[in-house]
Amino acid sequence: MARVMNFNAGPAALPLAALERAQKELIDFAGTGMSVMEHSHRGKAYEAVHNEAIGLVKELYGVPDNYDILLLQGGASQQFATVPMNFLPPGKSADYVLTGVWAQKAYKEAKTLGTPRVAANTERDQRCTRVPKQAELDLDPNAAYVHITTNNTIFGTQWHQIPNTGSVPLVADMSSDIMWRPEDVSKFGMIYAGAQKNLGPSGLVLVILRKDLVAAGRKDIPVIFQYRTHAETNSLYHTPPTFAIYMLRNVLDEVKRAGGLSAMEKLNREKATVLYDALDARADSFTCPVEKDSRSVMNVVFTLKTPELEAEFLAEAQKRGMVGLKGHRLVGGMRASIYNSVPFEAVSSLADFVLNFKK
Amino acid sequence: MARVMNFNAGPAALPLAALERAQKELIDFAGTGMSVMEHSHRGKAYEAVHNEAIGLVKELYGVPDNYDILLLQGGASQQFATVPMNFLPPGKSADYVLTGVWAQKAYKEAKTLGTPRVAANTERDQRCTRVPKQAELDLDPNAAYVHITTNNTIFGTQWHQIPNTGSVPLVADMSSDIMWRPEDVSKFGMIYAGAQKNLGPSGLVLVILRKDLVAAGRKDIPVIFQYRTHAETNSLYHTPPTFAIYMLRNVLDEVKRAGGLSAMEKLNREKATVLYDALDARADSFTCPVEKDSRSVMNVVFTLKTPELEAEFLAEAQKRGMVGLKGHRLVGGMRASIYNSVPFEAVSSLADFVLNFKK
Repeated sequence: MARVMNFNAGPAALPLAALERAQKELIDFAGTGMSVMEHSHRGKAYEAVHNEAIGLVKELYGVPDNYDILLLQGGASQQFATVPMNFLPPGKSADYVLTGVWAQKAYKEAKTLGTPRVAANTERDQRCTRVPKQAELDLDPNAAYVHITTNNTIFGTQWHQIPNTGSVPLVADMSSDIMWRPEDVSKFGMIYAGAQKNLGPSGLVLVILRKDLVAAGRKDIPVIFQYRTHAETNSLYHTPPTFAIYMLRNVLDEVKRAGGLSAMEKLNREKATVLYDALDARADSFTCPVEKDSRSVMNVVFTLKTPELEAEFLAEAQKRGMVGLKGHRLVGGMRASIYNSVPFEAVSSLADFVLNFKK
Repeated sequence: MARVMNFNAGPAALPLAALERAQKELIDFAGTGMSVMEHSHRGKAYEAVHNEAIGLVKELYGVPDNYDILLLQGGASQQFATVPMNFLPPGKSADYVLTGVWAQKAYKEAKTLGTPRVAANTERDQRCTRVPKQAELDLDPNAAYVHITTNNTIFGTQWHQIPNTGSVPLVADMSSDIMWRPEDVSKFGMIYAGAQKNLGPSGLVLVILRKDLVAAGRKDIPVIFQYRTHAETNSLYHTPPTFAIYMLRNVLDEVKRAGGLSAMEKLNREKATVLYDALDARADSFTCPVEKDSRSVMNVVFTLKTPELEAEFLAEAQKRGMVGLKGHRLVGGMRASIYNSVPFEAVSSLADFVLNFKK
């Protein structure tokens, strides 16, 4: 079958060229007579891939030298636990900004380990239709860290201004908008992201962490959960998810070929604009619940007037080769995830479909 | 390049047919117009793969109904921490049998969390050349569990009789010999194994856990580390490593086609016999340090008389298309890992090479 237009929220679309490269060499990687999956993680062939992937993160994102780049397992959900395990000692508090389901989950996991505090909460009637403004943040200057979720995959909101947390380290779950644009990494104490939206397949999590925080992390927790363990071993303390890291390399290599993160930002803004404009133009039939200045460039959430119309929209879209448009089960409606690897043509086709749906 | 003979210790050789299947459908999985990596973990296409993989584990291993089969991340090294987190409450002890590097690591990680106890230790002069006999085990009848490593990848030893621990649950790290033969799973409270030796690519860990232990696990630890979280959600609490699970399905499907675990045991015993026989026949030049009744059927460890001879052996083997034979850096020497997916022909070629080396 021809490639469909894939609007899945994650795991999500990957660049066709990155997949074709994997397909071509799946059984014989770089003339070694075996798959990259069959290589030792301590051998030269794999190690080159590992270091190239880390090098591409550093180069494309401009990661300063005082940060470690770690490739871990367990997804963002495991980071919800390991962040407070490392950085929230007894007697200290940490500030959590609640802007959606994933921020709530991070907060709840921190509560199993210590005493986090809510610095802001934009939930109303079980929906979060915006992110808070700087002035709304009730920040504790003695907090161990401030935790935010930069993009809320489910509700379709995104921070367009990274908040200022002063001298308190900012920890950001960027799972669904990592590397969507150039970023000043030095604003953050820690960035973490599950790979399965903008970076590669699932089963891999990227962590970018300031070295002084690595050093300050607790030492009385299991070795496997200390960030220093992975920082000191170039993420080779134990067997890494080698194929997922190989795919990260392939994906980031395509991002680089396409012009890097500036080109990616331009493309992503164009995609978001064409789709939001179409939805706004069809306000007779479509509603975007998110406040305009919090609209996500990655996940475009919208509804139609009745469940019947929504079902018809989904069915008609599917006939046109557009899949993955159903909203998250917690909020219903529609969601088009238009991550880095979703082509402009797919988003443009969806916008055309919106403009002409039952007109 | 033609397929090499891959004796890597892990990640390790995979069945060619399992890789070819992946290659063929890498860009268009089951006629869906996208890669299996691009599918939602909540969609029907992936869910069928997920359930087939779990079903194959259950069917091939004869897993009783009172066990949960979990597909997790973080490898065996993470289980070293999550086992005591779940099952070693304050005031209780757990028994660890030390038979090598991995058993030591599991014990050390447990010490960061509670008070494990050494039930036996076969280390002598920093080597472990055998596993203990039942009579040597100093078991505490009040222990929370007894932990063993069924196969020691680095030293090349293996338990051929699973020890009897009475009413105390036996927890086994089977990373390097999981499913090498049929097994009576009911002897174990818990089995865990990193996938990257006998089951698939790295980044996936298989856990088989008695349901009463799942229920008895601690509830005051992070949700992500409670086994019940994954048992209650069919390992879909968060995004699983979908491609690794897809490969597990492909690999186990090949095991099934080859006749299941009885056929696998016969094949594995034949491979081990031909290689150990060759090494014993050439006792003039080769030494197997492991005591005969502890010899591993999965990892055949041997040495030559001088480092120069070992280097020559490795170089000559490489010319013949045999790779991955260098021993672990901690113990030196040679190691041939002959897991389920290593063909008889590869092991037989290695045995011939041993028989004729510098004769």
